[in-house]
Amino acid sequence: MYCKYTDRIKDECGVFGIFGTEEASVLTTLGLHSLQHRGQEGAGIVSFDGKNFHSIRKQGLVGDNFNNTDTLSQLPGKTAIGHVRYSTTGESKPENLQPLFANLAIGGFACAHNGNLTNTFSLKKKLVESGSIFQTSSDTEIILQLVARSRKKKLIDKLRDALSQIQGAYSLIILTNKKLIGVKDPFGIRPLVLGDKNGSPVLASETCALDMIGAKYVRDIENGEIVIITESGLESIKPHKQIPERPCIFERIYFASPDSIVNNKTVYTYRKALGVQLAEENKISADVVVPIPDSGVSAAIGFSQKSSIPFELGIIRSHYVGRTFIEPSQSIRQFGVKLKHSVNKSCIENKRVILIDDSIVRGTTANKIVKMVFEAGAKEVHLGISCPPIKHPDFYGIDTPNYSELIASKFNLEDMTKMVGANSLFFLSLSGTYKAMGFNERNPKSPQFTDHCFTGDYPIDISEILEINSKSND
Amino acid sequence: MYCKYTDRIKDECGVFGIFGTEEASVLTTLGLHSLQHRGQEGAGIVSFDGKNFHSIRKQGLVGDNFNNTDTLSQLPGKTAIGHVRYSTTGESKPENLQPLFANLAIGGFACAHNGNLTNTFSLKKKLVESGSIFQTSSDTEIILQLVARSRKKKLIDKLRDALSQIQGAYSLIILTNKKLIGVKDPFGIRPLVLGDKNGSPVLASETCALDMIGAKYVRDIENGEIVIITESGLESIKPHKQIPERPCIFERIYFASPDSIVNNKTVYTYRKALGVQLAEENKISADVVVPIPDSGVSAAIGFSQKSSIPFELGIIRSHYVGRTFIEPSQSIRQFGVKLKHSVNKSCIENKRVILIDDSIVRGTTANKIVKMVFEAGAKEVHLGISCPPIKHPDFYGIDTPNYSELIASKFNLEDMTKMVGANSLFFLSLSGTYKAMGFNERNPKSPQFTDHCFTGDYPIDISEILEINSKSND
Amino acid sequence: MYCKYTDRIKDECGVFGIFGTEEASVLTTLGLHSLQHRGQEGAGIVSFDGKNFHSIRKQGLVGDNFNNTDTLSQLPGKTAIGHVRYSTTGESKPENLQPLFANLAIGGFACAHNGNLTNTFSLKKKLVESGSIFQTSSDTEIILQLVARSRKKKLIDKLRDALSQIQGAYSLIILTNKKLIGVKDPFGIRPLVLGDKNGSPVLASETCALDMIGAKYVRDIENGEIVIITESGLESIKPHKQIPERPCIFERIYFASPDSIVNNKTVYTYRKALGVQLAEENKISADVVVPIPDSGVSAAIGFSQKSSIPFELGIIRSHYVGRTFIEPSQSIRQFGVKLKHSVNKSCIENKRVILIDDSIVRGTTANKIVKMVFEAGAKEVHLGISCPPIKHPDFYGIDTPNYSELIASKFNLEDMTKMVGANSLFFLSLSGTYKAMGFNERNPKSPQFTDHCFTGDYPIDISEILEINSKSND
Amino acid sequence: MYCKYTDRIKDECGVFGIFGTEEASVLTTLGLHSLQHRGQEGAGIVSFDGKNFHSIRKQGLVGDNFNNTDTLSQLPGKTAIGHVRYSTTGESKPENLQPLFANLAIGGFACAHNGNLTNTFSLKKKLVESGSIFQTSSDTEIILQLVARSRKKKLIDKLRDALSQIQGAYSLIILTNKKLIGVKDPFGIRPLVLGDKNGSPVLASETCALDMIGAKYVRDIENGEIVIITESGLESIKPHKQIPERPCIFERIYFASPDSIVNNKTVYTYRKALGVQLAEENKISADVVVPIPDSGVSAAIGFSQKSSIPFELGIIRSHYVGRTFIEPSQSIRQFGVKLKHSVNKSCIENKRVILIDDSIVRGTTANKIVKMVFEAGAKEVHLGISCPPIKHPDFYGIDTPNYSELIASKFNLEDMTKMVGANSLFFLSLSGTYKAMGFNERNPKSPQFTDHCFTGDYPIDISEILEINSKSND
Repeated sequence: MYCKYTDRIKDECGVFGIFGTEEASVLTTLGLHSLQHRGQEGAGIVSFDGKNFHSIRKQGLVGDNFNNTDTLSQLPGKTAIGHVRYSTTGESKPENLQPLFANLAIGGFACAHNGNLTNTFSLKKKLVESGSIFQTSSDTEIILQLVARSRKKKLIDKLRDALSQIQGAYSLIILTNKKLIGVKDPFGIRPLVLGDKNGSPVLASETCALDMIGAKYVRDIENGEIVIITESGLESIKPHKQIPERPCIFERIYFASPDSIVNNKTVYTYRKALGVQLAEENKISADVVVPIPDSGVSAAIGFSQKSSIPFELGIIRSHYVGRTFIEPSQSIRQFGVKLKHSVNKSCIENKRVILIDDSIVRGTTANKIVKMVFEAGAKEVHLGISCPPIKHPDFYGIDTPNYSELIASKFNLEDMTKMVGANSLFFLSLSGTYKAMGFNERNPKSPQFTDHCFTGDYPIDISEILEINSKSND
Repeated sequence: MYCKYTDRIKDECGVFGIFGTEEASVLTTLGLHSLQHRGQEGAGIVSFDGKNFHSIRKQGLVGDNFNNTDTLSQLPGKTAIGHVRYSTTGESKPENLQPLFANLAIGGFACAHNGNLTNTFSLKKKLVESGSIFQTSSDTEIILQLVARSRKKKLIDKLRDALSQIQGAYSLIILTNKKLIGVKDPFGIRPLVLGDKNGSPVLASETCALDMIGAKYVRDIENGEIVIITESGLESIKPHKQIPERPCIFERIYFASPDSIVNNKTVYTYRKALGVQLAEENKISADVVVPIPDSGVSAAIGFSQKSSIPFELGIIRSHYVGRTFIEPSQSIRQFGVKLKHSVNKSCIENKRVILIDDSIVRGTTANKIVKMVFEAGAKEVHLGISCPPIKHPDFYGIDTPNYSELIASKFNLEDMTKMVGANSLFFLSLSGTYKAMGFNERNPKSPQFTDHCFTGDYPIDISEILEINSKSND
Repeated sequence: MYCKYTDRIKDECGVFGIFGTEEASVLTTLGLHSLQHRGQEGAGIVSFDGKNFHSIRKQGLVGDNFNNTDTLSQLPGKTAIGHVRYSTTGESKPENLQPLFANLAIGGFACAHNGNLTNTFSLKKKLVESGSIFQTSSDTEIILQLVARSRKKKLIDKLRDALSQIQGAYSLIILTNKKLIGVKDPFGIRPLVLGDKNGSPVLASETCALDMIGAKYVRDIENGEIVIITESGLESIKPHKQIPERPCIFERIYFASPDSIVNNKTVYTYRKALGVQLAEENKISADVVVPIPDSGVSAAIGFSQKSSIPFELGIIRSHYVGRTFIEPSQSIRQFGVKLKHSVNKSCIENKRVILIDDSIVRGTTANKIVKMVFEAGAKEVHLGISCPPIKHPDFYGIDTPNYSELIASKFNLEDMTKMVGANSLFFLSLSGTYKAMGFNERNPKSPQFTDHCFTGDYPIDISEILEINSKSND
Repeated sequence: MYCKYTDRIKDECGVFGIFGTEEASVLTTLGLHSLQHRGQEGAGIVSFDGKNFHSIRKQGLVGDNFNNTDTLSQLPGKTAIGHVRYSTTGESKPENLQPLFANLAIGGFACAHNGNLTNTFSLKKKLVESGSIFQTSSDTEIILQLVARSRKKKLIDKLRDALSQIQGAYSLIILTNKKLIGVKDPFGIRPLVLGDKNGSPVLASETCALDMIGAKYVRDIENGEIVIITESGLESIKPHKQIPERPCIFERIYFASPDSIVNNKTVYTYRKALGVQLAEENKISADVVVPIPDSGVSAAIGFSQKSSIPFELGIIRSHYVGRTFIEPSQSIRQFGVKLKHSVNKSCIENKRVILIDDSIVRGTTANKIVKMVFEAGAKEVHLGISCPPIKHPDFYGIDTPNYSELIASKFNLEDMTKMVGANSLFFLSLSGTYKAMGFNERNPKSPQFTDHCFTGDYPIDISEILEINSKSND
């Protein structure tokens, strides 16, 4: 139900679109499946058959809901866009699934959004006061309402009108009865790439979606760029004042698929480099390097290769947790982390163990795993994290906890080490992080990445969000 | 999916609301159950708990969906409104279920509507052109959008603003964070009554809903009246120029529940009187009077009492058809009407039979039943209809077929008699119909009822609907 | 779960079978639909395609579960049998749905049973002790197990072997890879008729199932008869010592469909005659005769015709209760009987009312309706029951309450009258009941009907059942 | 439906049981979750509360079906057993889910079985001929029927009676109203271990289930052993002639969980040793060692460590395939293996790649992956398999294809290399396999493992199975 006015939705998501090809919705299903790591709550596809728009949005995985002829045959047409959405809380709402759709006076308008707007509250207030009726609690609907209310004549001008009013992180894919449109925010925080499937243009959050459908990578959409794809080709406009791009560093550290390519290298390569850098900065005597699976595997391989300490699968991750046991009953919850991870004693017993993970957020999982490793007979446990401490929430589209729940925001290294229970805890330095990304150092005047989670340097004003949050906590 | 711009929904529905009592949603469930004959496609309830609105809308019967503690506990609060919706076609759409809800700048606004607007198309076009986004194909959403866009300050003024723009038949129940509001259109086409449940005001389509919850009948809402119920009492305003009321005659002939009271008499009484009048006008020698169940039972009792021909249950209706076999597979469809009706041979064989029904629309069912009765051994079959021939579609909220499908619109009595296959077919006269309703005769200058289905005399302009229909048939 | 050894299932059911016709499962679906009044808990069909048996059993109505091409295409073949089962309690068990099926050494064996065995406990004990494993708590499985364990060579001899051991009421339809078999118990307590659909033999509980599929009535299966239908025709054997038939009188009084024919008359005719007889025996001054719908309608028509007191629909029954509100939540349950019945005030107010129903079991419904009629303004309420007082439980396949819950078993007429709250309560006499059935009087030496519910004269020993019941009540 | 007589079910499964503890069904749920890799089709639990047995069996994952208070509260009692079942084909049958249950004359008897019997056909034929009715196509039901039909008095004697008649591989867990019983077949083909949870005995297929619930490992159940657990303790009997154990070698190679302990080492350790041995036997110049995930990861780590060629995640496995896309629609199926695996180009391009997998069955997946790796720019692709060629079907409880589908059964190394499309294909030798398992060599007179898939040396006669298979292929 859409009654609660102050709902805020933070979500990481994936988007996909393809123009002018047979089986557009089949290819969109495959593209979304390859982007499933960006969001598992639900998925949606809107197709256009030259006359009508068709939309299906379902809670659950792409493969569970769209992998059948019945569903796909209800999505006819040569153009389609799709969206996968991250599950932020237990109560997920079907009406918040995307793509959103509206019948505007100039025709149908579907929109899929990855990112988070930062001036949602004031824009929504203004729109509602002038008579707009919102059906969702999604910030994406604000874009639709702004486009609908624009007094400009042409669709592109209406869209520019809307973009001039919103602030925040956004990669958008838009479908109309004539156009497929891709939009990236001025800083280029969330990713969006352009591909080509036998002549049909493709837009997607990551290159892995292009590989899935056998499409070629063409180029990244640039920060602040709008690409407009029609029958007559691709047009690019840049309505904003141009500024240097500043992509979210977390996409490389842990969000993107390891096989996706960013700046000519796979994400796996960056993550291994983070592990190499971590070994470079921390010389520790140990018998085995053990990743916390699956998040720590790439960095652990790098760490092992650099340190020459053997890589071992000392912790096993269940294939069957994930969709399962998400909300275990109390009688089961007491058994805690073991549902997801178990220890491989042979690799641990009487060993000095270096555990590697890609990040630490609340610290609760790390604590349980360190304890489990000691119980299996480890002599020493050292926990290495292949990025700096996360001290600040994201607010740009990744669902991070508030300040009060971020362990690194509240405690120093010594306290954190005690809390996780390890013999030592070590993080990668900020400069080491930038080195692993291929830069000599962070440029403090114009940072190469959106990295506020480590530095507190928010490129886009978040005061409205902080104000709303502080009110809702009263 | 809400993409198809030209969807027109014709529906007969039931509405209910109660203000300021414990278990408001339980009482609303019971009220809707008693109004279930007005719509079986789906039902919805919106409650207000003093702080938040809560809404549940489900396809299917009230008793199947709302009769459980889980659902009712999700609808807390002392005020609630509800709606049952008629199933017009196979493809029913969850988003068209009511009550509709919108978060307006001045707060939440829920609306349940029985009736049909006649200037939908032009109003919607204007709203969309100025930036409104419609989420449903329901004409009721137009009311919400008009209220949202009104520049008036107070809710009641916004509502008056909206009502001044709409045309058609409407009985509305509206819920805000302060008020329960009932509205009847200027002609009072669809019913709406006021009741009292131990001091709590109740609004409902029919008195049977008052009986169900043990509430007293207070009075009818008048044509063109708005009643505003708040903590401080009930206020009545009449924003329109007052004209004589002209309620839909079909409510009495076949739509309302037989135990509902209209003008101090139960609907059953009117229907029996129609049967008495029919016998008065048609003296036929026969052995038995047999109703087509259940629609013809009341009139058949009247006919039998007046004619002194014995009343017999010569046709049996299955209790298990209705929700079942609605869309039988082809292999079953060939068996036709027998799924619903069967013949009681002992009452029919070697008898002269008068069949009684309350109306004839397409004539297909009548034909099958007459045939079935002959096959069971009837010597003669005479079919009496307790209202005049239906020659014109409704357009004001009852789902009647188009002109081309109304048998009485296309054929004269002789042809119709042949088509149904009876020895004779006889209708009640228009003046007989008015007599049964308690009037000496129809007042041609100011008819006491909305009776265009018989007379073609449409009180509200329907040219916009006819124009849209003719286009969509191209 | 089939663990509880002492489960006793009492059920009234309907059975159907057809041999050697295209679309056997479609015709079986229609037959079962027409027998739906005999059981609403669930339905099942087993078909044989010349090579394999196919079985589908589903909880719920026939029309909801079997009315689709997908399901029917999974039941191929020219021969099929089916079963509808009565819902006795809230916890219904899918594995108890019929027809039951077993792969015997001589081939597949499917069986559908209407009735109740009386020596279940001792037979089951013996079979389990010798190594049989029961999968259901249904007494029908005993028949299968006895057939499976018989040392006879031929199927018919195995069946005779099994029948020689069971006691109780049973009408069976059995399907094997060669035969369709119908069986009636020695007293012929439950009904079973033979029909003909264009040369294909049909077996069914009632003639209404023959009408539904357009089959001709051939004859009743006789008490104690086995009919064996094969490609080469129909054979009849009578393995038991022949005794006079004694069908269950309740089939005519309230169980069978009003249009079904028994002894050349429709069941409706018998019920009207019961009403005539009731009026004959009870001369009461009153203004209206009002049936308690739907059970009392037929008798009320007879009563009205005999007494010349007008028949009026003074009580309206909701079409939407039945599957709905069966187990209302506590907050709704308090509103009681009104969910199902409502009063038509115009027929009641200031009137002396004779209410007619077909039977009285616990008396709770009668009490609520009498109260409701007084509240609507009746001056007097007289309750007439068109059969004698039910003083004894059935045990032969109808789900009646135990002695302690049967109002007529515990109280005399005066007390019962007070309990139901009427001015007077009157029952039809036993001899009147037999008169209405077409007999001059009950033959006490060889009663024409199984009528122990009125008389306590149980034709088949029930001591084993009484013993088990008394143990399970400890 | 259980009509088809010749159904043969081959399944690998997992079993669990616990005796005399609070929350027995919660612990069983957790145990089954940790054994989920042994079967994902469905799961079941039977508990005993001291008076009644309770059973729930559901298709789908343990965590999806048993992880809620409602379900667990329907399984009360201090003793419980459970089963997970492998999905062999699309048509899975609820009635084949285990544990099976029967009410025997001496009380309830529940049985969970991992393995496959080899004389099913002749036993079932004999039982059916003497009057047993089978409800499932599971070979496990034969054990129940044999126990039920045994003329011995005591349960254990009945069980011994049954075991004396069956042949094949079986690890059983049995629950009665007094006992928890574990049984291993004479060769000890399938695993079964004994554990202790705070004094309560536990039986499970693997030690990972003991770890999951925090139980201590006590010992393996021995080949041919029956352990009987009662209130008074544990008794062990060995009814068969004792022979050397011969466990299935595939449990270690690919079936068991990597963290399960067998002979004091984790399964991961054996698999790494297989990789080490493979590198020992095959010296190949290459740039990277890449596992086919997840099956090849352990061996690839061993191979990399031994060969000093870097280990890289060159192939990425989707987390979201598994339950999803199992039966893709035709339009999606054409996209083939990419749904499950994708290539990490940075690790592959211009590299000489050694791919490692744990086995090769049909060869179709290997072919697709080799092709994918070449398309990503590999210079050379060498495929190493960490076990010998699989030339013979299993028949003892693992679902392997028939001879005609086993690539190694039909083709020599040269042909297989061409078919998979690699520059070279190499297998581990049989002696290397035994070395990795800790033996100097295979003892040909008394092999240490059941290894017929490599050698054709079937310890238990399979002629009945081959005969039935050849008939059903006609």
